[in-house]
Amino acid sequence: MQHYTAPIDDMMFQLAAFGYDAVAKLDRFEAFDFETARMFLEQTGTLASDILLKSNRNGDTEGTKWDPKTGEVTIASGYEAGHQALAENGFYGLTADVEHGGGGAPISLGTLAKEMLMSGNKSLSMCPGLTNGLIEALEAFGSDEQKEMYLPKLATGEWTGTMCLTEAHSGTDLGLLGTKAEVHGDHFKLSGSKIWITWGEHELSDNIIHLVLARLPGAPAGIKGISTFIVPKFLADGSRNGISCAGLEHKMGIHGSPTCVMALENAEGWLVGEPHKGMRTMFIMMNAARLFTGVEGVSLGEIAYQAALDFAKERRQSRAMAMGKREAGQAADTILVHPDVRRMLLDVKSTTEALRGLSVFISANIDLSTDHPDEATRQEADDLVALMIPIMKAYGTERGFENVSDCMQVCGGMGYTVDGEIEQYLRDLRIAMIYEGTNHIQALDLVGRKLGLSNGRLYNVFGKKARQAIEAGKTHEETAPFAATLAQTLSSLDAATVGLGKRATEDAEVMGASASTYLTAFGLVVCGFSLLTQANHAVKANTENQRAKLGVTRHYFERVLPEIEGHFAILSAPHQSITMFDDADF
Amino acid sequence: MQHYTAPIDDMMFQLAAFGYDAVAKLDRFEAFDFETARMFLEQTGTLASDILLKSNRNGDTEGTKWDPKTGEVTIASGYEAGHQALAENGFYGLTADVEHGGGGAPISLGTLAKEMLMSGNKSLSMCPGLTNGLIEALEAFGSDEQKEMYLPKLATGEWTGTMCLTEAHSGTDLGLLGTKAEVHGDHFKLSGSKIWITWGEHELSDNIIHLVLARLPGAPAGIKGISTFIVPKFLADGSRNGISCAGLEHKMGIHGSPTCVMALENAEGWLVGEPHKGMRTMFIMMNAARLFTGVEGVSLGEIAYQAALDFAKERRQSRAMAMGKREAGQAADTILVHPDVRRMLLDVKSTTEALRGLSVFISANIDLSTDHPDEATRQEADDLVALMIPIMKAYGTERGFENVSDCMQVCGGMGYTVDGEIEQYLRDLRIAMIYEGTNHIQALDLVGRKLGLSNGRLYNVFGKKARQAIEAGKTHEETAPFAATLAQTLSSLDAATVGLGKRATEDAEVMGASASTYLTAFGLVVCGFSLLTQANHAVKANTENQRAKLGVTRHYFERVLPEIEGHFAILSAPHQSITMFDDADF
Repeated sequence: MQHYTAPIDDMMFQLAAFGYDAVAKLDRFEAFDFETARMFLEQTGTLASDILLKSNRNGDTEGTKWDPKTGEVTIASGYEAGHQALAENGFYGLTADVEHGGGGAPISLGTLAKEMLMSGNKSLSMCPGLTNGLIEALEAFGSDEQKEMYLPKLATGEWTGTMCLTEAHSGTDLGLLGTKAEVHGDHFKLSGSKIWITWGEHELSDNIIHLVLARLPGAPAGIKGISTFIVPKFLADGSRNGISCAGLEHKMGIHGSPTCVMALENAEGWLVGEPHKGMRTMFIMMNAARLFTGVEGVSLGEIAYQAALDFAKERRQSRAMAMGKREAGQAADTILVHPDVRRMLLDVKSTTEALRGLSVFISANIDLSTDHPDEATRQEADDLVALMIPIMKAYGTERGFENVSDCMQVCGGMGYTVDGEIEQYLRDLRIAMIYEGTNHIQALDLVGRKLGLSNGRLYNVFGKKARQAIEAGKTHEETAPFAATLAQTLSSLDAATVGLGKRATEDAEVMGASASTYLTAFGLVVCGFSLLTQANHAVKANTENQRAKLGVTRHYFERVLPEIEGHFAILSAPHQSITMFDDADF
Repeated sequence: MQHYTAPIDDMMFQLAAFGYDAVAKLDRFEAFDFETARMFLEQTGTLASDILLKSNRNGDTEGTKWDPKTGEVTIASGYEAGHQALAENGFYGLTADVEHGGGGAPISLGTLAKEMLMSGNKSLSMCPGLTNGLIEALEAFGSDEQKEMYLPKLATGEWTGTMCLTEAHSGTDLGLLGTKAEVHGDHFKLSGSKIWITWGEHELSDNIIHLVLARLPGAPAGIKGISTFIVPKFLADGSRNGISCAGLEHKMGIHGSPTCVMALENAEGWLVGEPHKGMRTMFIMMNAARLFTGVEGVSLGEIAYQAALDFAKERRQSRAMAMGKREAGQAADTILVHPDVRRMLLDVKSTTEALRGLSVFISANIDLSTDHPDEATRQEADDLVALMIPIMKAYGTERGFENVSDCMQVCGGMGYTVDGEIEQYLRDLRIAMIYEGTNHIQALDLVGRKLGLSNGRLYNVFGKKARQAIEAGKTHEETAPFAATLAQTLSSLDAATVGLGKRATEDAEVMGASASTYLTAFGLVVCGFSLLTQANHAVKANTENQRAKLGVTRHYFERVLPEIEGHFAILSAPHQSITMFDDADF
């Protein structure tokens, strides 16, 4: 039986550690002080651990069903109740503008809410997740008419949204996409075929609003000729539009979420934003999606950790290695006493809390970047967000997958069975390393775009923040060793960054060969920054969780961060073994 | 559509590189020269890629079904034909003594055959796998009567075998098991309940012979009071014995293999070997099972690699980073040109070939250890086997799982779908890190038992072999850099080994905290030894695959082995963050 305890205390701690006070002071978020935040998180946690979790197994076992005659898609039992609860509690428009019916919550809280909803039911929570992305895109680029027409219905969950990007021959490389838009009066008619459309068809909401990437007549080739269109399932007069589900994918996990092939046949669509500037709209949706995909690693890492910890506290096998730890009157000790079990649990706990902190750090900076009165503050916050998002997405999912696998290992054979619940989390999470831009695409975004911007400005902003945390850490005996280690590792990262840049100018392929390894190394440093920031706060504010935070931080710096030595060693190696390997020899 | 090309050429190469000539010279194996070996491997490959693979997907989708009224278990369609083909081609008794109807093949060939059979259908191939283990146990400890009664039928696959160890409260810790054996004339009656019994019940064979661990009356507590019994499904008079299937586990993968709960109610059983010495019998079965479990990582890594490579050669997305590699007249290049795709494929290819080499190295030494006329040679071979088996099991499955996951990443979304076949391999392989002794149990076996034997004699024997390979490598320009790197890494492993031993004497928990990391580091060194040995042979014998072997070896030494720096860094860190973390803070 699955269960989930929402980690409210750690979430409140993270908000305090990562500057939520500055967010709560912004005019737009004055209703969201710490006390309100806690109430909100508690309510969300209850929704996740009660209503959402209840249908999570149904989704996995029943899956989704497509009727080839009608194109209708049937969703698993219990999902409708979950969707209704999400809608009624305002999760479809949680962070949307109040002006158009949204909840007006800061992203900081939205992110933590997402984490809990995904723990409860990842497949179902993807539906409001995509709708949020569509809302953000329309807020940024929709016309006033479009905003009025769509946002209020989307914010209440009466309507839901999708993002229609991928085509069979065009995934990572969106420039190849071929869906066409023909002029039709004041709007357009679209034809083509899209794949991997999450929640592309279902009966939970009255309408589905698709955001579709397509080409206008005479559009330039490649990504410079892509425009974005709104294509609703039902038109304003209630008639069915020419977009329908032509099949479902059968996947390793997220069985509860319908992954649709969508056929567009003269589907009526309305241009969003300027012609040929569709990538701008897409990136608005993508940025949010990438942050939340990274959070999926935290989310399933957390619930898998809870399952593994419960098991470790109950399961008795073998005696403790240290005589003093053997429980009298028992033939065996609980496995929580075995160092290797503790090692795995602490690896998971420390990185999960590090990544949760990172998600709050990014989110608070998103809030500051849009609403802080000072331009320099906004710019700096925006820089941090741009740099951290590919790391959160890729490292969050890479580590999250390792973490869920470690939790399975703690549970042994029980972890591998369907009744053991963890196996579903492992299957559900694996896709997160692939979708919303594969993890390597994140690495190329980091190395190829973000590092190069304005002479390394983004990297320097992060360096400044990290050095502030290091300075703060040095002032306390408990945190000083962590600060010293982070300072050293940051210098090594600086050197690796300079080295990579230098070699990349000599050979274009260096970047491709090393970007993924570089991102992993950067991810480890960022997790160190996150935990040092948390430890500093725990000591400074003398928080209740101080001993625990210092314990996980110590574990991270002593037994997890050193992994980075392997990544640095690989980064300094030649890349020709990869690029010059003869194709015939594969 | 799944397909598989048996890697016969690489297998023949590995046999030559790892001293199969010495095996083929032994009296017992005189019928198995290189030419015969190739014919045998080719036939096995055809069986695997044709008949076995045909039912692999059925097994996954249909699973196994248990009838609670009769206790009967139904196996997926196509499995019966697969079982028949395995039986007719002698795979049930492949390496068993000719005297009792076995094929008398060397383990070296048996291991390579296993690799191919598992690639074709892991779930089904576990049935002959367990039967082989039972045969070995009976050959070692069965009475003459038992041998005559059981071996000929097991060797032909008319009967199949199981290994009944685990009970609900007794998995890793076998000392807790409670199944009881009462005296019943010249034999015994057993009662208890066993779980995780692979192929415990099915209708494919005329009889099922269970090897059951249980306690005799008055047996000492713990593992010193365990005895082993033969418990057949049907007794000699054709009547049904008191052992039956009481349910099946529902698992993440290996759906085609029935994982049974077995109830024993006064089941008639016959003691194998001496009373209370059951662990000796168990270890005979276990050693073989651990070697072959490691091979599962090679096996599924290989077939996943083939699927990923095919995809990478066909799929076109984005342009090559190097202008000179862009294909004219195409909007995008095949993804095989992208450095990150090549990196993943080469990581997989190099470690798969390294681990295949290790499996042949171990197997050839098993053959020498049993049949070489010179006692010193037998002892040295036995030492190498004892030291390498936990590494093969744990590192083979750990790396294999990473490899299959990397292959999925190469295929992107397609890799995550059921049609993409790789997702089944990932699910099927995950259990291999858990069963036959979890990977941490392997690490404790390595560090706690094998390293300590006779003052490090086993470790020194490996060191000698590795230094021979290094000396040979130094004599050729192409292999000299690899030899130099291995020499350096081996010195670091020596230091880590000494350091660990020293700290373990001060604190019993050090071993538990560090054993898994140590095994991974040792695994990386052993893979380096394996590939250097292969590169040496390729150069010396001027083999056709020389360029390819030097290419993968270079990739391994430059871009994979350096991972070890992270593991060494963790090994040298304090362990108190793990052992002194407060239980209340988890």
